[in-house]
Amino acid sequence: MNEKYGMRKYDFVIEEVPRVPITDPLGQQIMKAEAPVLLTGGDVISSAKKWDLEYLEANLGMEDFVVYLSDSHVFKYYDEKKVRDPQALPNFVPPIKRSDMKFAEFRRYLKKWLPEQKRLYLQQALNSTVGEAIVNDFRGFQWSWINEVQKANGWGPLTSNLLFIGMEGNLTPAHYDEQENLFCQVEGRKRCILFPPDQFSCLYPYPVYHPHDRQSQVDLERIDYVRFPKARDLHGYEAIICPGDILFIPKYWWHHIESLYGGPGHTTSINFWYKAPPVGTIEYPLKAHQKVAMMRNVEKMVTEALRDQREVAPLFCALVLGRYTDRT
Amino acid sequence: MNEKYGMRKYDFVIEEVPRVPITDPLGQQIMKAEAPVLLTGGDVISSAKKWDLEYLEANLGMEDFVVYLSDSHVFKYYDEKKVRDPQALPNFVPPIKRSDMKFAEFRRYLKKWLPEQKRLYLQQALNSTVGEAIVNDFRGFQWSWINEVQKANGWGPLTSNLLFIGMEGNLTPAHYDEQENLFCQVEGRKRCILFPPDQFSCLYPYPVYHPHDRQSQVDLERIDYVRFPKARDLHGYEAIICPGDILFIPKYWWHHIESLYGGPGHTTSINFWYKAPPVGTIEYPLKAHQKVAMMRNVEKMVTEALRDQREVAPLFCALVLGRYTDRT
Ligand SMILES: [Zn+2]
Ligand SMILES: [Zn+2]
Repeated sequence: MNEKYGMRKYDFVIEEVPRVPITDPLGQQIMKAEAPVLLTGGDVISSAKKWDLEYLEANLGMEDFVVYLSDSHVFKYYDEKKVRDPQALPNFVPPIKRSDMKFAEFRRYLKKWLPEQKRLYLQQALNSTVGEAIVNDFRGFQWSWINEVQKANGWGPLTSNLLFIGMEGNLTPAHYDEQENLFCQVEGRKRCILFPPDQFSCLYPYPVYHPHDRQSQVDLERIDYVRFPKARDLHGYEAIICPGDILFIPKYWWHHIESLYGGPGHTTSINFWYKAPPVGTIEYPLKAHQKVAMMRNVEKMVTEALRDQREVAPLFCALVLGRYTDRT
Repeated sequence: MNEKYGMRKYDFVIEEVPRVPITDPLGQQIMKAEAPVLLTGGDVISSAKKWDLEYLEANLGMEDFVVYLSDSHVFKYYDEKKVRDPQALPNFVPPIKRSDMKFAEFRRYLKKWLPEQKRLYLQQALNSTVGEAIVNDFRGFQWSWINEVQKANGWGPLTSNLLFIGMEGNLTPAHYDEQENLFCQVEGRKRCILFPPDQFSCLYPYPVYHPHDRQSQVDLERIDYVRFPKARDLHGYEAIICPGDILFIPKYWWHHIESLYGGPGHTTSINFWYKAPPVGTIEYPLKAHQKVAMMRNVEKMVTEALRDQREVAPLFCALVLGRYTDRT
């Protein structure tokens, strides 16, 4: 499963995420250390092995599914609330379009797709409106294993499960989430490139008020070293995930995910998002993700206190340029 | 009183602070607008007209006076608490030395001074240890006028009166204070160059944790435009103050003060520092000084949360560079 046929090439160093059989306690050690690990050979979501598109169409139900459309292979998520915000800067043009589709419609589109058409990516939270067979399959996950992991790592509650169905070639560009993620592959293969929280300064996320909050401004396929000089220090960790594999993506770890060619034409994944553990006593020195959380708080406070988003950049520049820039 | 004989030349534009007779209501209007003004022709501290060095020596008392010594004409204040701080960076070398002297000793030093010796600057808060004649002179200030100004502007309490006695040629470089300042000239002349709070980004103050907090890093006599590019946008307001004049220096206004040559050999001033008015309802858009206060709070919070001062600059750089630097 590791032939790198037809995969994109990148400028930066890439090591491998450790691949560990799910029964090996090493996997749990790595998770406890808040590092990524690829767990193989498990049956945690075996009941979803039959979730091909035909089965899903027959059993998911008649409700709408969130499907994004893109003019390119890139699906760069954006926060709609930050677009609609009355204080928001008015010049944001969403790079992808969000639409609602019935599953049958989505499946038909995939079947008839031609390269000049927009690409699609279905990203839908599983909820109570799904059909009974799907509910049963979901109940049939190995919850003892899943819950044990949640408990062993002190995670908060399971907040959602998203179903991801993307076309081969689709790319979700580098971003981070604030929740812990168990990412389970169902159909097709995905190439996940991860960067630790301490590479924040190499990935230049958008301002927190921006609709692309938590996304990197750096196009990893065409790195602009003039705007983003520290991108030269990027060092990624890669995992190719195949059906049955589970990738643990720790909170605040950047992830860039490509749906690989050479499979059934699409990739299907389900994730489990858990709220981070409560903070407890703060120990020093701080971890990288704690500093990222601190920076987020600073940006939020300043943005809220200034009210006018146009004033945020000038204030931060005045605070830092020539005052902290020669002290590192 | 306005001949500019033998005054230093600067690169930046300098306008004049309005000079207004103290009886003209315009002066109070300007103060209410939080702008500087030079009030002339008053008798507010007439009882201090006799405060030459002989009288002061005879009447101040036997206690110690804080006197700073400098190897140059520059007296750049520093916060001792920030030098001693256990978390402080260890490489700070104080540019001036603080010592305690009897007034008679200070006066003798001034009399016998030769250019190869250190310069002196007495900066002492007036307190209850002063002799009776001085107490009477102090009581003899026009407190009705002073208190009316405090009231009309909603200032907080009078926090201190400092007595400043400096050698001609001494320079207190640009810095800002967080309190309202009525600066009264007693003997000799001073050249005060002021910059509004909105020129913060042209003056590049030291980090808040630094002993030179609130001081500009820019040497105005030899501006380094490479390190401090926005110093090109400096625009100052100048007031030459003579005995009897009162200069209102609003809170957060930068001031650079030179003791001019051609007088009795020294300059004597007394200031009145008032706590700023309480905040009240915040109105938008914010004033420049409120943004300066906001930046101070951000710096303090981050410095305290990180604990190690060496981590502050890297965090601020990661927060800002390539993220807010191209959005102004
Ligand atoms: Zn994600
Ligand atoms: Zn001052």
